[in-house]
Amino acid sequence: MENPATNDFPIHELLRRRWSPRAFADKRVPAAELGSLFEAARWAISCYNDQPWVYLVASKENPEEYERMLAILIEWNKAWAAAAPVLALSVARTSFRHNGKPNRHALHDVGAASTSLALEATARGLCTHQMGGFDAEKARATFRIPDGWEPVAAIAIGYPGDPASLPEELRRREIEPRSRKPLSEFVMSGTWGNSAALAAGGKKA
Amino acid sequence: MENPATNDFPIHELLRRRWSPRAFADKRVPAAELGSLFEAARWAISCYNDQPWVYLVASKENPEEYERMLAILIEWNKAWAAAAPVLALSVARTSFRHNGKPNRHALHDVGAASTSLALEATARGLCTHQMGGFDAEKARATFRIPDGWEPVAAIAIGYPGDPASLPEELRRREIEPRSRKPLSEFVMSGTWGNSAALAAGGKKA
Repeated sequence: MENPATNDFPIHELLRRRWSPRAFADKRVPAAELGSLFEAARWAISCYNDQPWVYLVASKENPEEYERMLAILIEWNKAWAAAAPVLALSVARTSFRHNGKPNRHALHDVGAASTSLALEATARGLCTHQMGGFDAEKARATFRIPDGWEPVAAIAIGYPGDPASLPEELRRREIEPRSRKPLSEFVMSGTWGNSAALAAGGKKA
Repeated sequence: MENPATNDFPIHELLRRRWSPRAFADKRVPAAELGSLFEAARWAISCYNDQPWVYLVASKENPEEYERMLAILIEWNKAWAAAAPVLALSVARTSFRHNGKPNRHALHDVGAASTSLALEATARGLCTHQMGGFDAEKARATFRIPDGWEPVAAIAIGYPGDPASLPEELRRREIEPRSRKPLSEFVMSGTWGNSAALAAGGKKA
């Protein structure tokens, strides 16, 4: 299924269709497809072009690696993410490579890279679902993530599945319309709290 | 001009062409176009769908607002960003709306939203350049940004310009090929430091 954005201003099809479902099909993802996903992440912006991201990745083709990755998720996420053929974990380097100083944009730039990854997935008929719900310390121990790097988000990757495969509560969430704050609440001009005039131009204004 | 990614695996045209130039054309951006950029940001992912982003925006059509925004940039960025017809500032809410607890993914999610914005710009023949180089405390004072919100990045928005308009050092940077680490350095499996096998599948492997 799809669950596109209900946008007020027109946006590109890729952005409109990107979505984080919980139902995944039982279908493997070719390695070259995954390569394109991480290639998309590679070309994201970053402060000083520092590229402060690493992705740990595990697929069901290697059941032992996959189980180790699945085990870092909280139970709520395991319940559905275990159907995804590929799991990944984004990790941020928290200091700059060129001078060792703290990089306050490290997570920002990982967010940029993972969004690029998610949009490349959409372009290929794949879908992704990022999760903050995992045990960061368990991830650190499992994968021997060194000091100076911070586990950021787990990512389920695969082809879209049938919502009927989900438990009832998740199925209900899967098919309900997606929602976001209107532009008038987050696009401001002049001073804090003043909606920008442009925000009034959408079709629902 | 364009300066597309020199990618090893194929990626979507939008992602390949997205780029952060410093040369901008002297051409205004219609408000409806800006609306689509922020609409793209609106539909980004966020932890608990918290949408922890605000954008302050200033265009040259309102010279006083524009000058106030330009004034928060460091001199190095003012030198070229003053040509962009629109400047914006992303701001992150650092705690969750639903429970007031710290949101460690706040900047991550702003990075997601701003990447969506940048890709929508690419789709419309616009370009964006994000900057960490601005005075966050001056931004806070100028726009009365409240406690609990953190200025994240300044963003120049406009149509691509002629690199010849730039000072020599910036012109040189503008036309040099873009570079990124290869996948083998940031896609790992099993344990930290092990390149994932899929990383070897690119055309330059």
